[in-house]
Amino acid sequence: MQNGYYIGVDLGGTKICTALVNEEGKVFKEVTVPTEAEKGELKIVENINNTIKEVLGDVKIEEVLAIGVGSPGPLDVKNGLIVETPNLPFKNFNIVKAIKDVYNTEVFLDNDANAATLGEFVFGAGMLTTNMVYVTASTGVGGGAILNGRIFRGSTSNAVEIGHTTVNIHGRRCGCGNRGCVEGISSGTAIAKTANEAVKSNVPTSLKNYDVVTSKEVFIEAAKGDRVAKEILDEALSYLGILFANLANSYDPDMIVLGGGVSNGGDIVFEKIAEEMNRRALKPIREHCKIEKAKLGGRAGVLGAAALAITELEHKNKKDGYIIYN
Amino acid sequence: MQNGYYIGVDLGGTKICTALVNEEGKVFKEVTVPTEAEKGELKIVENINNTIKEVLGDVKIEEVLAIGVGSPGPLDVKNGLIVETPNLPFKNFNIVKAIKDVYNTEVFLDNDANAATLGEFVFGAGMLTTNMVYVTASTGVGGGAILNGRIFRGSTSNAVEIGHTTVNIHGRRCGCGNRGCVEGISSGTAIAKTANEAVKSNVPTSLKNYDVVTSKEVFIEAAKGDRVAKEILDEALSYLGILFANLANSYDPDMIVLGGGVSNGGDIVFEKIAEEMNRRALKPIREHCKIEKAKLGGRAGVLGAAALAITELEHKNKKDGYIIYN
Repeated sequence: MQNGYYIGVDLGGTKICTALVNEEGKVFKEVTVPTEAEKGELKIVENINNTIKEVLGDVKIEEVLAIGVGSPGPLDVKNGLIVETPNLPFKNFNIVKAIKDVYNTEVFLDNDANAATLGEFVFGAGMLTTNMVYVTASTGVGGGAILNGRIFRGSTSNAVEIGHTTVNIHGRRCGCGNRGCVEGISSGTAIAKTANEAVKSNVPTSLKNYDVVTSKEVFIEAAKGDRVAKEILDEALSYLGILFANLANSYDPDMIVLGGGVSNGGDIVFEKIAEEMNRRALKPIREHCKIEKAKLGGRAGVLGAAALAITELEHKNKKDGYIIYN
Repeated sequence: MQNGYYIGVDLGGTKICTALVNEEGKVFKEVTVPTEAEKGELKIVENINNTIKEVLGDVKIEEVLAIGVGSPGPLDVKNGLIVETPNLPFKNFNIVKAIKDVYNTEVFLDNDANAATLGEFVFGAGMLTTNMVYVTASTGVGGGAILNGRIFRGSTSNAVEIGHTTVNIHGRRCGCGNRGCVEGISSGTAIAKTANEAVKSNVPTSLKNYDVVTSKEVFIEAAKGDRVAKEILDEALSYLGILFANLANSYDPDMIVLGGGVSNGGDIVFEKIAEEMNRRALKPIREHCKIEKAKLGGRAGVLGAAALAITELEHKNKKDGYIIYN
């Protein structure tokens, strides 16, 4: 790592969050603006570049060592392209070039899951690890892996698509078309879906007291003792725990970090994970592997993008890098 | 890689197989002797060192760049120790030192699954890959992973314990104590167990014509059209295919290689795996990832141990190595 500034850009379907940070993750300035995805790709680029200008303030771009961009995928990371993504209008758009055309510094791109993983590794729960798996459970289930101290991307840059781990072939059909994915059982969306099925049924449950039931209400009512809410979480979180045990047996990591909305569900989440880890992960693995809650919270995206900038610049300088731009 | 000889030692519970090879995997001399595990650790070491002497013949030890030893685990790879293992009498025994005391060359140790993985990567089906997962299904289910061109060992040297991936929580209890491991459903042992349950039941099946039913007989009778044998394989191989899809989504590899007795079951094995891969692995991942049968067959162990010697010496010379001996 070098002294100097880094900029993280968290590009989302509804908002862009950009921050100026240093190599220790100290945030000097942060700005969030609407993405305005409906106005087309050039408008989005303009919005991104304006946020960079704003967080720079009096700081000169020459003092910024690198910019990292975290974006929904699929991406062509090596060529700096957003291939296409459901909530943004980009089609094979070179987002790296579009930023470099305005700002004369290094720019690196990766998907939001890898950026969040790097964020926890560089600034968050996994700071002292060498092998770390990050799991996010919210709308979907996704994640990333740091292996031997580096983000692991796989052969087509799609590694660690762990939401589509089959954990129960009789499970609900997942958005991917398959049945049994952990995303279809343990995501916040899945928890809400199961809860709403219960609300519409004849089963007596305090979940019926709400106009809208999301996973948050299921956690609230389970904590108050509602049997149905508890049953729903029991199943969803057991399978999340099975995912953790499978990841532990597969990656033998120092730590698995849980982020996303489900990680805010309280003790019940980590108790269920511990239960399945104890049951299913091999002894030397589970005795070593820590399970931690993500630390970056709402700043996961933007600090993750900054962590991407820091780590990729480091690899580029060492010439052991993976991301090579034409 | 350097020009010169390498020696691979495949240490098993019943036999020791040792070979003198070159960096292309050409076998100059090969010898197999009984392990004589019941005679104690020093006798085993004597047997190992005698096989090395025998394969050397007129070749001087100075011409041997490195010796690789593949052993059942768990091991303490960094310190060269066999910690303990069910079928061998070693307890925290420094097998590396015991060989180096007699032969003045580099000696490297790793578990048999990693050695077999390296064998397929260096000499076999995975020669041109960067990310490769090796799965062996025979007595148990195990494997290893080459990630970014290197064997991945994890934080406690227990990575890729994929036999204990939970694929069906209602599955048979596995030797590890857990229910639902793929090893308890899809190993050769599991197939034989399910078949023998059928034989003892009232169900009509041609498996009853055998005195002893192993997985081999199940494959034979399924090919002949026996409904029960087909049902048994259908379940076992579907879950093996689910393991493959989970590994593909997790590691995004260039190739997954199947070895072990089950890999000799013919087309039905690879058809079932392809079926589950198509159903469960994400499109960009499955379109890239090849599924191949292991190529080294009976020589997997000894060539794997030689591949360990070659790759670890290379990393040691580049000073980017993982195995550091005191």
